[in-house]
Amino acid sequence: MASVTATYLVHDPKGNFEKKAEGIALGLTVGSWTDLPDLQKEQLKNHKGSVAEIIELPEDARVNQYFGSPRKQALLKISYPAANFSPDLPAILTTVFGKLSLDGEVKLIDLEFSEDLSSEFPGPSFGIDGIRNQLGVYERPLLMSIFKAVIGRDMDYFKHQVREQALGGVDLVKDDEILFDNPRTPFEERIKTAKQVLAETEEETGHKTLYAVNLTGRTFELKDKAKRAAELGASALLLNVFAYGLDVLQSLAEDPEINLPIMAHPAVSGALTPSEFYGISNRLLLGKLLRLAGADLVLFPSPYGSVALRKEDAVGIAAELTEKHINWKGAFPVPSAGIHPGLTPLLLQDFGIDSIINAGGGVHGHPGGAVAGGKAFRDAIDGLLLNKSLEQISEESDPLKAALNLWGGLVKS
Amino acid sequence: MASVTATYLVHDPKGNFEKKAEGIALGLTVGSWTDLPDLQKEQLKNHKGSVAEIIELPEDARVNQYFGSPRKQALLKISYPAANFSPDLPAILTTVFGKLSLDGEVKLIDLEFSEDLSSEFPGPSFGIDGIRNQLGVYERPLLMSIFKAVIGRDMDYFKHQVREQALGGVDLVKDDEILFDNPRTPFEERIKTAKQVLAETEEETGHKTLYAVNLTGRTFELKDKAKRAAELGASALLLNVFAYGLDVLQSLAEDPEINLPIMAHPAVSGALTPSEFYGISNRLLLGKLLRLAGADLVLFPSPYGSVALRKEDAVGIAAELTEKHINWKGAFPVPSAGIHPGLTPLLLQDFGIDSIINAGGGVHGHPGGAVAGGKAFRDAIDGLLLNKSLEQISEESDPLKAALNLWGGLVKS
Repeated sequence: MASVTATYLVHDPKGNFEKKAEGIALGLTVGSWTDLPDLQKEQLKNHKGSVAEIIELPEDARVNQYFGSPRKQALLKISYPAANFSPDLPAILTTVFGKLSLDGEVKLIDLEFSEDLSSEFPGPSFGIDGIRNQLGVYERPLLMSIFKAVIGRDMDYFKHQVREQALGGVDLVKDDEILFDNPRTPFEERIKTAKQVLAETEEETGHKTLYAVNLTGRTFELKDKAKRAAELGASALLLNVFAYGLDVLQSLAEDPEINLPIMAHPAVSGALTPSEFYGISNRLLLGKLLRLAGADLVLFPSPYGSVALRKEDAVGIAAELTEKHINWKGAFPVPSAGIHPGLTPLLLQDFGIDSIINAGGGVHGHPGGAVAGGKAFRDAIDGLLLNKSLEQISEESDPLKAALNLWGGLVKS
Repeated sequence: MASVTATYLVHDPKGNFEKKAEGIALGLTVGSWTDLPDLQKEQLKNHKGSVAEIIELPEDARVNQYFGSPRKQALLKISYPAANFSPDLPAILTTVFGKLSLDGEVKLIDLEFSEDLSSEFPGPSFGIDGIRNQLGVYERPLLMSIFKAVIGRDMDYFKHQVREQALGGVDLVKDDEILFDNPRTPFEERIKTAKQVLAETEEETGHKTLYAVNLTGRTFELKDKAKRAAELGASALLLNVFAYGLDVLQSLAEDPEINLPIMAHPAVSGALTPSEFYGISNRLLLGKLLRLAGADLVLFPSPYGSVALRKEDAVGIAAELTEKHINWKGAFPVPSAGIHPGLTPLLLQDFGIDSIINAGGGVHGHPGGAVAGGKAFRDAIDGLLLNKSLEQISEESDPLKAALNLWGGLVKS
């Protein structure tokens, strides 16, 4: 039977998890069960939620201290029949974590979709292979960089930055997520300018660079804007998914007239994920749900910078995005924030070839400028894949040497 | 200058809040400032964020224990020029709490919109007065009830429940938020049936009852479905706003062809609000932002039930929804969950006349059935407004007496 099975981490003063789990399984489906007449049970049996598993966890003194009284902990797995909801994420989220999100210390850790239910969701349209095909780059992590401080600047500034980043050998450049429609660097102008500049740099260097434009504005205008972006020659869309909704991402991904890779930005997701008691796990929200809804590339905080995820979370997101799935293509993990060339060995070790190395300050802040910043990364990546050490590579790469001198290159593991 | 000013509660190991606040104000706007040439400063000055206020708070031993090291606390107020974003909620949320939501212990407490910026948002189309006009009820709180356990049931069951609730004197009946498109109680059938039944009961009793249908499914289909609902005679829309997005609510509220009051459900909002360290305050999210985006009625957990908000939060939401605003109509607060007739004095005291008393089990679970359940509430409300006590009223109201016997009527204040 098609279903979704939710895993919750609960902290409860009373424990009594069998009763609690049964209460959730009934309360969020048919309401009651044991006292129903047999005829009604027969009518409702395909709609009744069920408890799949209860895993009691040890108490945590630190948690008990925080609440000022003991909290029993458990993982509860509850299955919800797909007969109860339409096959869309708003219905599923409302079912599994609607009212329940308001009911004390309960965090949504995972959702397991039965195979037939998962086939209702598109997954990435392009995915890792599709983006590699666009770039013609297969055997290394991709390199991405972000525009720096574009707010309030004009198109000349923008144009200069596109060119510098592309000349450094960057594979993708993306808008800053806080750049919205504005008169100085309008949406359509950015797309047209980036297209022209990137055609020139490809002509000059043979290296292809994609530009991801920030798709912003009112929800019901996004499809038309995305189509316009595609017509004008944008190569990808950046979307602040969590400022809109997962279903908006899905609708954009499914629209055949849009046909551009979508890069999901984690902005606002930190309102949902960091608490150990409430919200939604990073792995589920930024990993599984973004892939299922159709993100081709997913940015998330790297474990290395000042804005950081726990390594377990960052690696978990990447696993969700890349592991084989019967219905969905893989999506590119893009661990971001605090990335400089000295971290490339660690990035390769933690996220592998099928990931994107993404830097802002680590490109623009290079002593030799953004061109040298890009080259430092590219040299590091290429050399590491030939089994050289950063130190060895830097002997032949002045950009990398300068980067390591500035940011360090001692690799902590 | 048009702007939005955000208030954050931060817990930081280092303190040094001037530096932190300045880092946010620049980092989320122009990027850097002090080292810029004067010409660039002139170009960027209307885009630079600024620190409005820093209020240091005392440390909390319980918090320090939880983190295992001291955390300084402060409220930081940062102003962001509206020149930096388009006047829509996704852009504003991404600006003020996009990347920042991922940056350690920071909770978004409030957003203050300058008057010109607030005029970009519609607020409720109907609001408290508009809904009162539809019902012709002015001098008392309204009474709402919720369908009980409709999943898997058929239209006869639905029809019976509509009728019973209306006969009890309920002003509004709403779908359960977990009732989605389904073959047994389809969206259009529910609307048509409710319209017919409610016309009959109004004919029989003279009492008017509105029906709020759950507007569900894919985001980009909601507008057409809402228009269809209006055509077929639904009297209001229920929306699981937080499973979609605040901007979706706003777009529905602004569409002149929809023209139905919108009832916002708090489902999934508990993923954002309960942590003391992360997320968004209840008062901002369920109060100010829902009103600004156009909700006419807002459900939130009452402070009395098992699924409960702190009273301060519940009353704060209601204040945001109802206080005078130059650009927005007031929206009805609907404190929900755990409501039975014995709580009416408390509800009146805490939420006043301009609120809606909303019950599920407190209507359907009445020993005399849903009709008596509704009557018990109505008798309690009407009597209390004549300055009678519940005890006095129950002497003349068997339904109320039975309710008080079952659920109690001792009023804690």
